[in-house]
Amino acid sequence: MGISIAMSSKRTEWRAEDKALPQVRTMHAYVPGKQPVGGDWIKLNTNELPYPASPAVAAAVAAEVEKLRLYPNPLSQPLREHIAAMNGLLPEQVFVGNGCDEVLALLTRVFSDGRNIACMTQPSYSLYPVLTQIQAAQMQKIPFARDMKLPVEAIRACTANLLFLTNPNAPTGVEFAPEDIRTAAEGFEGVFVIDETYADFARHNAVAMLAELPNIVITRSLSKSYGLAGLRLGYALASAQIVALLDKVRDSYNVNRLSQAGALAALKDEAYHDELVATIKATRESFRDALLARGFFAYPSSGNFVFAEPPARTGLSMTEAASSLFAYLEAKRILVRYFPGDALTESFLRISIGRPEQMDRLLQTVDQWLSNE
Amino acid sequence: MGISIAMSSKRTEWRAEDKALPQVRTMHAYVPGKQPVGGDWIKLNTNELPYPASPAVAAAVAAEVEKLRLYPNPLSQPLREHIAAMNGLLPEQVFVGNGCDEVLALLTRVFSDGRNIACMTQPSYSLYPVLTQIQAAQMQKIPFARDMKLPVEAIRACTANLLFLTNPNAPTGVEFAPEDIRTAAEGFEGVFVIDETYADFARHNAVAMLAELPNIVITRSLSKSYGLAGLRLGYALASAQIVALLDKVRDSYNVNRLSQAGALAALKDEAYHDELVATIKATRESFRDALLARGFFAYPSSGNFVFAEPPARTGLSMTEAASSLFAYLEAKRILVRYFPGDALTESFLRISIGRPEQMDRLLQTVDQWLSNE
Repeated sequence: MGISIAMSSKRTEWRAEDKALPQVRTMHAYVPGKQPVGGDWIKLNTNELPYPASPAVAAAVAAEVEKLRLYPNPLSQPLREHIAAMNGLLPEQVFVGNGCDEVLALLTRVFSDGRNIACMTQPSYSLYPVLTQIQAAQMQKIPFARDMKLPVEAIRACTANLLFLTNPNAPTGVEFAPEDIRTAAEGFEGVFVIDETYADFARHNAVAMLAELPNIVITRSLSKSYGLAGLRLGYALASAQIVALLDKVRDSYNVNRLSQAGALAALKDEAYHDELVATIKATRESFRDALLARGFFAYPSSGNFVFAEPPARTGLSMTEAASSLFAYLEAKRILVRYFPGDALTESFLRISIGRPEQMDRLLQTVDQWLSNE
Repeated sequence: MGISIAMSSKRTEWRAEDKALPQVRTMHAYVPGKQPVGGDWIKLNTNELPYPASPAVAAAVAAEVEKLRLYPNPLSQPLREHIAAMNGLLPEQVFVGNGCDEVLALLTRVFSDGRNIACMTQPSYSLYPVLTQIQAAQMQKIPFARDMKLPVEAIRACTANLLFLTNPNAPTGVEFAPEDIRTAAEGFEGVFVIDETYADFARHNAVAMLAELPNIVITRSLSKSYGLAGLRLGYALASAQIVALLDKVRDSYNVNRLSQAGALAALKDEAYHDELVATIKATRESFRDALLARGFFAYPSSGNFVFAEPPARTGLSMTEAASSLFAYLEAKRILVRYFPGDALTESFLRISIGRPEQMDRLLQTVDQWLSNE
């Protein structure tokens, strides 16, 4: 009787929220872009590749599926070795994760907490502050101006323990000058993360800086240029010391067998990858030109997307115009991404680069919207 | 010149360890069991299944590989729905992770830190203290006695915010009485995690208790009874409130497309699973009988392994005997697991249940070792 009364009281009064850490209780999870189920959507909202991954992936996955009863290689060692060779580094300088998001999360677990603050430029990938919030770490935000130039002096003056810089930046697509990144990283005392998720579509990357600056971490993803968003494979390039710290806090078998095998096959098929990237870049340039011809403002993009501001429309603010076009496109089953709540993003739409015929459909729909005034 | 001097000094003096959180700097990562590459090893050291996963897995993976360019379902929703139905629960009561290890790690991220201590019984899964160390959380250990009975009163007296109980326990294989677990969980004020990684090989599980006790979390794995250690798929069953907290701190796309599709196919092939489990249990019982007949002590096992203490040998302590047999088996290319450094484990070996012919080979090798005195 005593026990059943106690249980009944526990049933009604015990709340999981009361046991959760305060920063988790009050936080809001990262909200990913919509993943519509079925239908004839043109999906240009999450920077996925519009082309399938290398056919070598399917073959590698099919061969590996026979071995699923066994744990994977805990270090993803064959992948580390191949990625190291690709970048002229040692395998000890490569960390492999369950998507680039896991790599970023582990960086916050090693280098941020209630006493060690983090920093990011703004606007940028909105996952970073979610990750530092889980760590109860304060996130300083260094704002861009409308010209989107790297705020080098503000970064050098920042005393955070960990900094995230996305290059090319998202959602703007703007690529920073290598010398600006070098000057900023050289003057920053903490761990300087360069998130190169979109670097395959850009002119430069920071790999050469690893030899000079011990505080740099470069993160990469196979979700974009390799067409493998569904496989979850990201990696970091850094000093062996930083990689060793990440290895301490990852799950023992953080990357499954199929992802390891599929990613290795995709990385080895360089000709296929080069062709995909060239196609996306060509489509991106012609699409951006088409937007500029229609009166849009758009930053030059080094990603697989364009960040574009619709032209002024009678009776609408610039923000209302962006919001109106976003809704108009969605009603026509074209998904793009809209980032309200920040003066630097709320008058823009981020449009992923799809196949040329998808971009044409989008442009026709834009023309309908423009003529609806 | 000023910059190059500064860079040169940074190159020599900057140390990543100085930037890492203190608890990460000083910790030791979890060491998984050996994964030998190639050769003719009999691998009975990491509780993998000696039989392949359901053939339905390969078919599901092959169908899914075509969709890898798209992000996966962020919630693993079809899996949550199927797992809920299997267990008579709502989908909101199911959390799906990149292996059970990820689920356990996320539980420590929600419920433990420098102010909120954790608790575990000892011996048990040695990953738990690694996970709480990353959180800078103190880990209290409640020791078992040699009889391996659940220390119910000590658990009820424990004031930790989070407790891990493995049932059936590892490495012992001992299953606790449901009424003991219920009494312990009912009297514990924090979050009570029942790690049921091995429950498919046991007599009971705790699913029915979820309706009565809001503080219970049950964790499960497809690595053991489904033969999918290489796929990384684990899940938790809990209240919707606890699941919502876990969802806040996981990566947005924590489970890739191939793992979601393969796991769903494996879970649906219930007949295959039932046959695998029955085969392992039959092999386990005859193997344990064979050890007892040779003078070993072995706990009754409800897992897919047996925890066995070799008989006393002239001139050797019990610990030395276990260590000697471990080395003898390894020299004969038979891998089992040895846990030194704890009086309750250091005289034992944990032997995974393989195919009958593998267990016969092991027993023949044991006989050689016994006759070598």
